[in-house]
Amino acid sequence: MDVASPMGRVQTWLAKFEDALTKPDTEALKGLFAKDCYWRDLVAFTWNIKTMEGRDAIADMVNACQPHEHGRNFQIEGDANEADGITDAWITFETDKVRGKGHIRLNDEGCWTLLTSAQELKGFEEAKGPRRERGVKHGADPDRETWSEARAREAAELGYKTQPYVVIIGGGQGGIALGARLRRLNVPTIVIEKNDRPGDSWRKRYKSLCLHDPVWYDHLPYLPFPDHWPVFAPKDKLGDWLEMYTKVMELNYWTRSTCQSASYDEATGEWTVKVDRDGEEVTLKPKQLVLATGMSAFPNMPDLPGMDSFKGEIQHSSQHPGPDAYKGKKVLVVGSNNSAHDICAALWENGADVTMIQRSSTHISRSDTLMDVALGALYSEEAVANGIDVNTADLIFASIPYKVLPAIQKPGCDEMKRRDKEFYDRLEKAGFQLDFGADDTGLFMKYLRRGSGYYIDVGASELVADGKIKLARGQVVEVTPTGVKLDSGAELEGDLIVFATGYSSMNGWAAKLISQEVADKVGKCWGLGSDTPKDPGPWEGELRNMWKPTQQDALWFHGGNLHQSRHYSQFLALQLKARAEGLETPVYGLQEVHHKG
Amino acid sequence: MDVASPMGRVQTWLAKFEDALTKPDTEALKGLFAKDCYWRDLVAFTWNIKTMEGRDAIADMVNACQPHEHGRNFQIEGDANEADGITDAWITFETDKVRGKGHIRLNDEGCWTLLTSAQELKGFEEAKGPRRERGVKHGADPDRETWSEARAREAAELGYKTQPYVVIIGGGQGGIALGARLRRLNVPTIVIEKNDRPGDSWRKRYKSLCLHDPVWYDHLPYLPFPDHWPVFAPKDKLGDWLEMYTKVMELNYWTRSTCQSASYDEATGEWTVKVDRDGEEVTLKPKQLVLATGMSAFPNMPDLPGMDSFKGEIQHSSQHPGPDAYKGKKVLVVGSNNSAHDICAALWENGADVTMIQRSSTHISRSDTLMDVALGALYSEEAVANGIDVNTADLIFASIPYKVLPAIQKPGCDEMKRRDKEFYDRLEKAGFQLDFGADDTGLFMKYLRRGSGYYIDVGASELVADGKIKLARGQVVEVTPTGVKLDSGAELEGDLIVFATGYSSMNGWAAKLISQEVADKVGKCWGLGSDTPKDPGPWEGELRNMWKPTQQDALWFHGGNLHQSRHYSQFLALQLKARAEGLETPVYGLQEVHHKG
Repeated sequence: MDVASPMGRVQTWLAKFEDALTKPDTEALKGLFAKDCYWRDLVAFTWNIKTMEGRDAIADMVNACQPHEHGRNFQIEGDANEADGITDAWITFETDKVRGKGHIRLNDEGCWTLLTSAQELKGFEEAKGPRRERGVKHGADPDRETWSEARAREAAELGYKTQPYVVIIGGGQGGIALGARLRRLNVPTIVIEKNDRPGDSWRKRYKSLCLHDPVWYDHLPYLPFPDHWPVFAPKDKLGDWLEMYTKVMELNYWTRSTCQSASYDEATGEWTVKVDRDGEEVTLKPKQLVLATGMSAFPNMPDLPGMDSFKGEIQHSSQHPGPDAYKGKKVLVVGSNNSAHDICAALWENGADVTMIQRSSTHISRSDTLMDVALGALYSEEAVANGIDVNTADLIFASIPYKVLPAIQKPGCDEMKRRDKEFYDRLEKAGFQLDFGADDTGLFMKYLRRGSGYYIDVGASELVADGKIKLARGQVVEVTPTGVKLDSGAELEGDLIVFATGYSSMNGWAAKLISQEVADKVGKCWGLGSDTPKDPGPWEGELRNMWKPTQQDALWFHGGNLHQSRHYSQFLALQLKARAEGLETPVYGLQEVHHKG
Repeated sequence: MDVASPMGRVQTWLAKFEDALTKPDTEALKGLFAKDCYWRDLVAFTWNIKTMEGRDAIADMVNACQPHEHGRNFQIEGDANEADGITDAWITFETDKVRGKGHIRLNDEGCWTLLTSAQELKGFEEAKGPRRERGVKHGADPDRETWSEARAREAAELGYKTQPYVVIIGGGQGGIALGARLRRLNVPTIVIEKNDRPGDSWRKRYKSLCLHDPVWYDHLPYLPFPDHWPVFAPKDKLGDWLEMYTKVMELNYWTRSTCQSASYDEATGEWTVKVDRDGEEVTLKPKQLVLATGMSAFPNMPDLPGMDSFKGEIQHSSQHPGPDAYKGKKVLVVGSNNSAHDICAALWENGADVTMIQRSSTHISRSDTLMDVALGALYSEEAVANGIDVNTADLIFASIPYKVLPAIQKPGCDEMKRRDKEFYDRLEKAGFQLDFGADDTGLFMKYLRRGSGYYIDVGASELVADGKIKLARGQVVEVTPTGVKLDSGAELEGDLIVFATGYSSMNGWAAKLISQEVADKVGKCWGLGSDTPKDPGPWEGELRNMWKPTQQDALWFHGGNLHQSRHYSQFLALQLKARAEGLETPVYGLQEVHHKG
């Protein structure tokens, strides 16, 4: 081994690192990291999702966690590579309780970024590949229970004769992906879904909706889309896939069911969850409760003077049934993000007279440019051809600390500005107020910081630029009997007002289902603490409350796009499985709460 | 390039081969092949599934086909390997109409085996990977038709306003796999299925049934089972998968539908297919008709004296509902193949008094031994770990000419005898009459030659050996009011008689649905002409009538196990697509008919 080669450098570093961990020798450990350094841990050492920033934070974590986790056996997986002064490599390792995979980047000073992620719990591995079930039980058995009998019995008894360990409220992509992972880990789970069928949360949206993210980014765990799957799946097709997936993965998925209330008994460590199951009241007693109600599912409906007086129809965008009933009608759409654009375009296509009321500047990314510039390296046909499968892409993505991400996003954002200059110029000429994020870092940072403030253009922007979708600007101060009044004094007339005014923090669901007290205790969900609009500081380093322990014991939040639902369900499922099996899971660095919602 | 290396040898051979093809130089071509040689072609040169055996047969085919197909651009794919005096390699090539993949084995004399298979038709490739559909149509369009609208319109119009190019009779695994391939090739197709739901042909069988082949052998095209799928899938789980698959692959799949009759107009090249679709009579006018009615679906029911007088119940094994109603009853099961064993075991498990009546010797393979010895190298967790995915395994399997297969199967069969000697001894001691095939080549040769004569033991044989399933031997000569009389004179009593007496040739379906004349014209299906029991000569070299042109224009047979349904549907689909697109498809060596059924 040439110690100056990329492989040699990483191997030497890993040997020293393991030595410093094992002793432990905090000073030696600090010396191995660059001055500007990050260790992101996904449930391997911290039983948390946490990024340690800087040498001291890393040393503190190691001092706290290493004595009980015993990280060891760090090995390079595959080759190490060197480019632009950075040497990087995949690594494997283990602790007392987990087998892990990670990624490392070294620069001149030492380690710049380290990712450690739990892949499986020792002794509680998924029954896959060589460990898969046999299916048939050979030999003759007078008491044989067939697969379908066992499955029917489980479905009939769970929630009645036996109690689930986990209840997941919400059976969209998040609940389904997590449900599948828990099923593979043999954690008894019920998913509660209000709709008639899995996938209805997509089917019920406006009819022209297709995914805004491309297929390579959207796979569910375990069962990737086949290779003819369209780049941007139509919503009904995705709905059918989710329905099929729920069945094939054998989830205990209760349709036409809503959670009425939930309360936690700290003494017994048990939730009491009241569920209306298609008209029947059922009380569930799980040990863990997951709110997978959608990061965009608690509607923000403004309370404006005059709303009662309006002669037409008022809807929140989440209630909008699509354009069919509004041909020839005048529609006012308040807002200028994704939903507003999509709704306006579908209405225009169906012959409505549409006005979009822009309240504040909005970021627009053209879908094709975004795919190419932002996702192409990891999630594309080219990436697949380069051997970057979806699991590899997810880990590469996870290896970039959130603190570093804006600097990595900015050049892409600048490139988009350049490529689509003519497009942006036309939009501004039409009166549309554009932005590229507080620090010109574009769409993805807006998504992580606030989950709003953008539109991925699949056609509506041209209608805005052309004036086919009319544009007004300002704040709505009043609803009149025939329309709205803006702060500029302008009055607009409409038969329908759609408030595409977004959603509030997911802990709104905790307030509604559990209590305001618990909602306040866990605080705001999502966002990084970047101190940019709608994402107040202090800096958190990870998304608030997502997929990790919260200030409320046994309460978890799960959600996000298909990518996040897929990848982070892995770590949430491992945390739940560890607790189900009674492993010690001391949480390091439980987040503090700085904002209530 | 070292010409003496495996790569060098194959490359030199391919260059000479292409040169001899191109000129063409028949004598040079013959000189490139070993004396004992085989060229198996799957729809690349012959528009047929055909094995040319010996130098003359190869030269004849090349002289007939090369002038219009123009085979060229033969290249090694990956590495060449050498073992036991054989050099082998994967190859790619093209003709005027297809891109192909093949496999070659060279020995001291030259080429021993050559496989050429069509992978896609030039200009008519599947829309997969980089060619996949976009899904969304960006931009605004007042006449937009969504995916679900388009899909609903297609389903409503096909068979009424528009006509399918292909009708497939039978919606089991064969019809579904072929339907999926034709859908990916954009060939309008309707699948006709008598049951209520896709997968019911599995669900309706006896309740303890699990697949006898392991998961690695059973994948459907395009959408492999996830890696937790059980080794031997329970029948209801497989049924659910088929139902999901049919939906996800968007087949036009008519449930509760039966074909009443079909007739072909040679002048117009069109079939008239009368279908009862859930009570409605529909007449379809496809250009191509595929019978995918199951190679084991036309029951052989003996016509015995006294059957009318029997006071109990008489069933063919295909009608047997499972054991639930027969607890405490006496059951006589006539036959000793797969169905007979499975039915006996399930009845015994449910407390029936069961007697198996063995009419002739039967081959028994223990499932675990069979998996290990016969399938392990190609279809197993180890094979997957060695990089042999299911498509590679299928082509390796296809590369072995049927003539050579018995010699390759025999050592495995001998090994099974050795390993399971104690088991076989016990069975014989219990009076069970064993065989290992006419030439001691075991189960797979029996399957290919006659599709019967064996049981894959998953437990029933122990019950036979133990006497828990009683055993009688001989021919049933008469049914009495209370049971059966054997040729030995022995009389057996029963409340239920199950005739597990197998199935007749698939052209029975042609007789039933089309005419006896057409059934006789196409002749017997399945079997190789091995001149062993139930597979009379002369030697055919390929399975009769399966997946290839028959003596009846535009009539095709499709079926077999999941492996064959998967792999050969590829070649049948390409033949149908070529015809749908009006390509010239001159069939070389259309099989002669030697047996009517």
